[in-house]
Amino acid sequence: MTDTLADEVGAFVPGPRLDIPGAADGPLAGLDFAAKDLFDVAGHPTTYGNPDWARTHPPAGGTAPCVSALLQAGARLRGKTKTVELAYGLTGENVWHGTPLNPAAPGRFPGGSSCGSAAAVAAGLVDFALGSDTAGSVRVPASYCGLYGIRPSWGAVSLAGARGLAPSFDTAGWFARDAGTLARVGEALLPEGGPGALGPLLRPASAWTNALPETAEALAPALRALERLLGPALPVEVAPEGLPTLYEHARCAIAEEVWATLGDWIEATRPAFGPGVAERFAAARAMDPADAAAGRAFRRAFAARMRALLAGGAVLAFPTAPGPAPLLSATPAEQNAARENTMGVTALSGLAGLCEVTLPAGRVEGAPVGLSLLAAPGRDRVVLTLAAALAKEIGPRA
Amino acid sequence: MTDTLADEVGAFVPGPRLDIPGAADGPLAGLDFAAKDLFDVAGHPTTYGNPDWARTHPPAGGTAPCVSALLQAGARLRGKTKTVELAYGLTGENVWHGTPLNPAAPGRFPGGSSCGSAAAVAAGLVDFALGSDTAGSVRVPASYCGLYGIRPSWGAVSLAGARGLAPSFDTAGWFARDAGTLARVGEALLPEGGPGALGPLLRPASAWTNALPETAEALAPALRALERLLGPALPVEVAPEGLPTLYEHARCAIAEEVWATLGDWIEATRPAFGPGVAERFAAARAMDPADAAAGRAFRRAFAARMRALLAGGAVLAFPTAPGPAPLLSATPAEQNAARENTMGVTALSGLAGLCEVTLPAGRVEGAPVGLSLLAAPGRDRVVLTLAAALAKEIGPRA
Repeated sequence: MTDTLADEVGAFVPGPRLDIPGAADGPLAGLDFAAKDLFDVAGHPTTYGNPDWARTHPPAGGTAPCVSALLQAGARLRGKTKTVELAYGLTGENVWHGTPLNPAAPGRFPGGSSCGSAAAVAAGLVDFALGSDTAGSVRVPASYCGLYGIRPSWGAVSLAGARGLAPSFDTAGWFARDAGTLARVGEALLPEGGPGALGPLLRPASAWTNALPETAEALAPALRALERLLGPALPVEVAPEGLPTLYEHARCAIAEEVWATLGDWIEATRPAFGPGVAERFAAARAMDPADAAAGRAFRRAFAARMRALLAGGAVLAFPTAPGPAPLLSATPAEQNAARENTMGVTALSGLAGLCEVTLPAGRVEGAPVGLSLLAAPGRDRVVLTLAAALAKEIGPRA
Repeated sequence: MTDTLADEVGAFVPGPRLDIPGAADGPLAGLDFAAKDLFDVAGHPTTYGNPDWARTHPPAGGTAPCVSALLQAGARLRGKTKTVELAYGLTGENVWHGTPLNPAAPGRFPGGSSCGSAAAVAAGLVDFALGSDTAGSVRVPASYCGLYGIRPSWGAVSLAGARGLAPSFDTAGWFARDAGTLARVGEALLPEGGPGALGPLLRPASAWTNALPETAEALAPALRALERLLGPALPVEVAPEGLPTLYEHARCAIAEEVWATLGDWIEATRPAFGPGVAERFAAARAMDPADAAAGRAFRRAFAARMRALLAGGAVLAFPTAPGPAPLLSATPAEQNAARENTMGVTALSGLAGLCEVTLPAGRVEGAPVGLSLLAAPGRDRVVLTLAAALAKEIGPRA
């Protein structure tokens, strides 16, 4: 990579760039990767996207096992990438470190919270990058930047040595420019085994009507290609209570965990947060326990329902996000509306711990939009295989 | 409870005792509980069993959602209980806070790391108590103290607001004096749904031959009772590589995560640790990356094998620990040998994320020993039901 290009994209955290070679031979030899700056690398600082966090924490004492696994598989770590502060946001904005460019749609946000990882892969600075996904933080930037991305089944990849946000929602995911690389990384990180067959194909009605009409139209050819692989898509209503209800319950259940995880540090440090982030942490602090309890109760029933629906191998296909990345000129109110509308959809897998792969499958106003394939926990490897087959079917330049 | 009895047992952390009433009505109304002092309660310190931890951390900013869920279900929180320092040990010793009494076997260790929770329940100070189980820290003290205990499926109960040790192994579990209470708590904490039928019954040979002959003999009547419920126990070898190999891989995979989780703080603080704990953290710091990688690789293959074996509903029954609690007079070498021998068995569910319920089912030298029922992830509720049926079959005072 050229430093000039890297500087222009602004994907990496400020300061000296990490460069750690992987094992000499291994299934990922020859691939460069980056890691969102909430994964620890021994001896190096983990900023978590916030200067006060960096200031109040020593360099990491250990290395996150998922980073070690990639190095041991032969990949070369080329840097730590920017994140939304404490990973609590979806646009990818970071007022302290600078918001990375969206290489696939300049003038628009890259998406977050794994913004730097998405930007680094989209710009070709690395072959793949680790991110984390609590409420869409891999899937949304992947969709916005025209990338392949995975939110694995909850718990499938260890988050030891990774800073947490809402532990029962947090997952370690990754980005790549092609489906083959996305799957190869999965070979190194995902559990072995798991059930093999996928189908039938389900089309969750509310996730399609929730999208912009232009998004649904842009993704229609990809859905038709998927039907050639799995048979006709059966319409299903997975959220009869409405996606806004999913959003609200997910928001409350996540916020309770956010405060339980980070409240100590926030109370003790009184950190400075950028706009949006500050408001979200204030809301987490003020969460009504009854709302959090309602969120938890809804989640338990919803997860049971979704897991039962998908237990036999069914796959849901739907727009990863309602539209392309918001413009950098979007007002805070417009950004909030986009976030709420997006989180209603990303909550489908987040609330139930399902695995979801997004692939670039269309364009709206010249900007990428992604199609998600979602399946039961443990089916990560077979969903990655399906994504590769679909990518071949629709061609590399959707 | 009387303060005198509480003082004698030494189950609670030093300092003012928490007393937080639960919701006025709810399924757990009328029950008192305690929480291991690694679960946060807003406004109160979380000592994590170590004075330097307590000194370097502010009072908790939030409350762990699993504690909130119990309060909202009507249970009353009567205190925080002692833990082995940073939960890294199995005897229950804590040189700073004092080792709790084993009310079921005075003169022996209570077992750990959830030692105070087990002691509080065994002494009748509370009706149930939350613990955590990474490598046996609920199951072992339950067996040693003659209690019912559960290590839920990994991830079934949120650990937000709980201090972590080895995140991909850590679980939140609990203790009770009867199977009915153990199951009632599960109703408030566990996900809904899940598959219903259990069987066949499997008897893992190495877990029985690994136990003291007296333990196997003491548990034989309970196994026969279980056969009356599920049919004849089929012998199976789940660890042909030997339990010492399981122990060694689990130890390495756990130690890597321990250092990734706590290394920062240890390097920055240089805390004082009691005997045994200090050595274990030093070993975690010095872990050879190749050994950790081997542990991770073994775990992935082992987990796939165990999950395939248990997918249809099979239940493994075996001695929770090889013998009763070690004597307080045991030498460090004897304690280490007991720990290694125990962790080979507790690694069965730990490595694979399975659910395991232990119930008091016999006595050796007058001290309790427990029988474990282990099943596939997600079957927690039905295993709790099976444990209750078995308790009825063998009678309350095994």
